[in-house]
Amino acid sequence: MGTNSGPAAAPGELPGWAAEMYARDTATRTLGMRLEGAGSGRASVRLRITPGMLNGHGIAHGGYLFLLADTAFAYACNGYGPVTVAHSAQISFLHPVEAGDDLLAEAVERDRYGRNGVYDVTVRRQDGTVVAEFRGHSVALSGRPGAARPAGGDPAG
Amino acid sequence: MGTNSGPAAAPGELPGWAAEMYARDTATRTLGMRLEGAGSGRASVRLRITPGMLNGHGIAHGGYLFLLADTAFAYACNGYGPVTVAHSAQISFLHPVEAGDDLLAEAVERDRYGRNGVYDVTVRRQDGTVVAEFRGHSVALSGRPGAARPAGGDPAG
Amino acid sequence: MGTNSGPAAAPGELPGWAAEMYARDTATRTLGMRLEGAGSGRASVRLRITPGMLNGHGIAHGGYLFLLADTAFAYACNGYGPVTVAHSAQISFLHPVEAGDDLLAEAVERDRYGRNGVYDVTVRRQDGTVVAEFRGHSVALSGRPGAARPAGGDPAG
Amino acid sequence: MGTNSGPAAAPGELPGWAAEMYARDTATRTLGMRLEGAGSGRASVRLRITPGMLNGHGIAHGGYLFLLADTAFAYACNGYGPVTVAHSAQISFLHPVEAGDDLLAEAVERDRYGRNGVYDVTVRRQDGTVVAEFRGHSVALSGRPGAARPAGGDPAG
Repeated sequence: MGTNSGPAAAPGELPGWAAEMYARDTATRTLGMRLEGAGSGRASVRLRITPGMLNGHGIAHGGYLFLLADTAFAYACNGYGPVTVAHSAQISFLHPVEAGDDLLAEAVERDRYGRNGVYDVTVRRQDGTVVAEFRGHSVALSGRPGAARPAGGDPAG
Repeated sequence: MGTNSGPAAAPGELPGWAAEMYARDTATRTLGMRLEGAGSGRASVRLRITPGMLNGHGIAHGGYLFLLADTAFAYACNGYGPVTVAHSAQISFLHPVEAGDDLLAEAVERDRYGRNGVYDVTVRRQDGTVVAEFRGHSVALSGRPGAARPAGGDPAG
Repeated sequence: MGTNSGPAAAPGELPGWAAEMYARDTATRTLGMRLEGAGSGRASVRLRITPGMLNGHGIAHGGYLFLLADTAFAYACNGYGPVTVAHSAQISFLHPVEAGDDLLAEAVERDRYGRNGVYDVTVRRQDGTVVAEFRGHSVALSGRPGAARPAGGDPAG
Repeated sequence: MGTNSGPAAAPGELPGWAAEMYARDTATRTLGMRLEGAGSGRASVRLRITPGMLNGHGIAHGGYLFLLADTAFAYACNGYGPVTVAHSAQISFLHPVEAGDDLLAEAVERDRYGRNGVYDVTVRRQDGTVVAEFRGHSVALSGRPGAARPAGGDPAG
């Protein structure tokens, strides 16, 4: 994961809540994902596909594309205050991805209503080709950020 | 990923195509996933959640649950001959998962029609609690197993 | 809608809550859907496709298949007491449906957790062919059955 | 369905293929849906909710919201030439809808790749509130428009 495991956006460029969440986010950092931007209702995350992420067909495991999109979703929906988790998500795979491809996932909020949200994430390859489309449904828990374990649902990201 | 990176089911217990696909499946083996069974239309895959898979909320990143389910899906839909890939998938998160949890994903075929298939994957924790439900849509490519890059779609798993 | 607009299952064969819900269910009765069975976590609903349900390609509008499946989902998830509505749903179309086809939607509960539920509905043609697969996510509201308008979400069915 | 069963957009305002498809589209016209616009990759369809569309909870049956969105999807994806049908679709219900509400579904193409497409449809109430979000996956058949029955998949709309 070497070349892309550097720091995310310089800490000063991320809002405080995002920098703190990213500092605790072992899964994302271990895979070398870079949080390039985050705000209320939007986030950008980058991942370079390594040979260790290829499946039995010799191309990127679709699960890594989901993991990347789900991470962007998590940062897009957690900027409002309450701990917010994924209820469910859907992903479509448009094109195969190879080792060395540099992927950018951009999440945008589509709707918020009550404690719920709908977010769209588009994953593009370095040449701009869309390789996956993701739609996630979030639920805000009653706890505060950093609070104890959520009682239901599985946090996205 | 040490403790769960041992061999999958003893090679003799898996059909030849599954053992060969698993041998090439770097992504799955790197994460320590164990392919416990595979046949035409079904597969079982196990994953132990490590501290490196936790997200910024301190619980398992939902992307790893998807990755596990997607792997079971891939083995369930690739036993018929043609290289078969994921068109799209949907996942629902029912309960949070912690470090040390031992997850089992069981995939079953629901329908096959033309080159398409619908597969359901249930992910359970060691105490039997369902933590995620996954539904995947597959498409069989015209190539043979082990053939060159699929022309469209992104292989599941 | 003539031939299939008769009564549903004889009232005595349905649980009281289902008979009452069906009596108020104008949408379902207007289309000639027959509620053939309902219990906590399961329901069966039948619909005959009429010429008025064909789309611009001359086959059944997919929306009617969804409507049928969504109705079975609604009866399967409303037998526990609280008014329960649809959070979201996904449908896959497997085979085209023609005028005169007699469709049966069978809903079964897959999981319940907290106020949420996951239900699968399979829609079959008179020859047993599966024509659509549906997965719905429900949310129980705090109100009692027959209570005033739900505060959020759109009732399934 | 009286008040909203008038003609769609004046015929001259719709492209020829859309006017012809709408003329054959019994399902859509029977329900009083108005095709307000259609082009390659976009469409707008309007529906007024009648008392006959209410469910057992006294609000609009979610199936009618799907039917409306699915219709907009069908017109957005059929302007390229080949008969194009729905592979699958997902819908999220955000707010309840009442009798008398005037709904507008606007479909936009998100991606096309090979014979496949991804389309988003947003359904709004007369006050602008989003009541449902829909994402549909299309597949182009090899037949020409108006050709015989598609061999697989169920046309959207």
